[in-house]
Amino acid sequence: MAQTNSASSAAQSALDTRWIAADWGTSNLRVWAIDARGEIAGFRASAKGMLKLQPHEFEGALTDLVHSWLPIGEQIPVIACGMVGARQGWVDAGYRKVPCKPIERNSLVSAPTENRRLKVSIVPGLRQESPADVIRGEETQIAGYIQNGIHDAPIACMPGTHSKWVKLKANRIESFQTFMTGEFFSLISNHSVVRDAVKSNDWRENDFLEAVDECLEGRVALAADVFGLRARSLISDDNTTCLRSRLSGLLIGQELSAMRNSLGDKEVAIIGSRELARPYKSALNHMGCKTKVIDGEMATIDGLKTARELSV
Amino acid sequence: MAQTNSASSAAQSALDTRWIAADWGTSNLRVWAIDARGEIAGFRASAKGMLKLQPHEFEGALTDLVHSWLPIGEQIPVIACGMVGARQGWVDAGYRKVPCKPIERNSLVSAPTENRRLKVSIVPGLRQESPADVIRGEETQIAGYIQNGIHDAPIACMPGTHSKWVKLKANRIESFQTFMTGEFFSLISNHSVVRDAVKSNDWRENDFLEAVDECLEGRVALAADVFGLRARSLISDDNTTCLRSRLSGLLIGQELSAMRNSLGDKEVAIIGSRELARPYKSALNHMGCKTKVIDGEMATIDGLKTARELSV
Repeated sequence: MAQTNSASSAAQSALDTRWIAADWGTSNLRVWAIDARGEIAGFRASAKGMLKLQPHEFEGALTDLVHSWLPIGEQIPVIACGMVGARQGWVDAGYRKVPCKPIERNSLVSAPTENRRLKVSIVPGLRQESPADVIRGEETQIAGYIQNGIHDAPIACMPGTHSKWVKLKANRIESFQTFMTGEFFSLISNHSVVRDAVKSNDWRENDFLEAVDECLEGRVALAADVFGLRARSLISDDNTTCLRSRLSGLLIGQELSAMRNSLGDKEVAIIGSRELARPYKSALNHMGCKTKVIDGEMATIDGLKTARELSV
Repeated sequence: MAQTNSASSAAQSALDTRWIAADWGTSNLRVWAIDARGEIAGFRASAKGMLKLQPHEFEGALTDLVHSWLPIGEQIPVIACGMVGARQGWVDAGYRKVPCKPIERNSLVSAPTENRRLKVSIVPGLRQESPADVIRGEETQIAGYIQNGIHDAPIACMPGTHSKWVKLKANRIESFQTFMTGEFFSLISNHSVVRDAVKSNDWRENDFLEAVDECLEGRVALAADVFGLRARSLISDDNTTCLRSRLSGLLIGQELSAMRNSLGDKEVAIIGSRELARPYKSALNHMGCKTKVIDGEMATIDGLKTARELSV
């Protein structure tokens, strides 16, 4: 289902569009029309993420969203990042090996189109040999973060289904580490024996931070402490809000505990939505780390602009 | 669906049955007819575990299996353990507080029956205040283990969906700890982004033990190392057997790492099926711990015999 950003719909004439930026992930496709001044002239989104599409269906899903933006008779570049470039995506854009710049000139990979008016290029992911790790999409956000000249914080924390911690040095990505924190939270809170114990829409900061502290003190074994949430729900007065906040603290705390030696007194750039950034900011500040929050969508758009510049 | 153990079916006449032992868990019901000599005269099982039954359906599920065993005109005791005594079970048998004996005289809880020929008693679970933890069913296996006079190994490891580690002292349970190791393995290998990377029916001991070692060395952050399995499947030659064995090693290794300080040079009694016991035995021996394996089903039956003796 296409959504139109009404604030910018007046600007969505074909004439304004010079190129199209696309954030094409596992679950969603988000596109922006960029005009001659480099400004956003239009925004649309659909739920046609990579998982829902066969390779031959990507062009149609894109065209459904952007056809009214296409100038008549002209070819228009589309720069895309994310799982659209995975092995199961439109085309396998591969992985570049770190250390490297987040996006390199001439590294984008073309996707085949039947409509000659579309010229689609996909940003490749990054891979790390040891420990084995991969990134796809976040490299573009890092490029956007760096491009804004705000990389005085050389560690980026990118919360999400698969949180990424990225170490930067002189505009290059040195190394990174992925944590399945968001996916673990979803599996445990929706599909495990603990699910009833953590059914809540509220939040208790104290319980969250207490669990973070236990992780930092090395007192947590995840498979035991998560079961402990169910035990508490059976034999103590702890309510579901307390236990859900504690589950979040156990998972994020384990992540911070593993990253702690890399943090030192450096500022951490948290790149993501305000909602995802909030508990990470809270826990990092609680640990004594300085943080700044970078809007994840703006970082993606800025990174795609960088990719566009490096592709022409 | 009732299964009949053909080897003992000839012995399943009503006349032999003095009482019935029942292991009634989340997913299955298993019953044994015990004769006048205290021997097993019959065995039956069904998939009518606690999760599939409303409180008023338990009696029917039991009767379906045992009706041919019931002596005419006599009341027959049924001693049951497991989730049948949970809050969502036939009757809430509650929890006794550790430290305590695994089963105490007069602690069994009666379940109401319409058929006066059935006299059903349920073994209560155990609870631990701090860290909050609960056991239901394993207390009966511990009672069986102790009853056989083989408790020179004062730590019992009970592998399963929720593994239990139980510390014993002079025939009492001092404390215990639950790990959701089996449930985590199932969630990750069936429902996570890693599932394709670990699709295998084979086993590679070296990869399993390597992951156990990494856990013992404190080098593992579960949410990161589990994602690493997917990364390895994408960028290295590691096959699914290697990665599945590694997943098992990461989860069991985290459990052993948390328990290590309690192990010392004590022998560990592994109580469970041969299949579940095997990787725990392998890892514990690799760490230099002595182990002995106790058949979990025999421990349950022996424990229910103890419960029967304490209830008359």
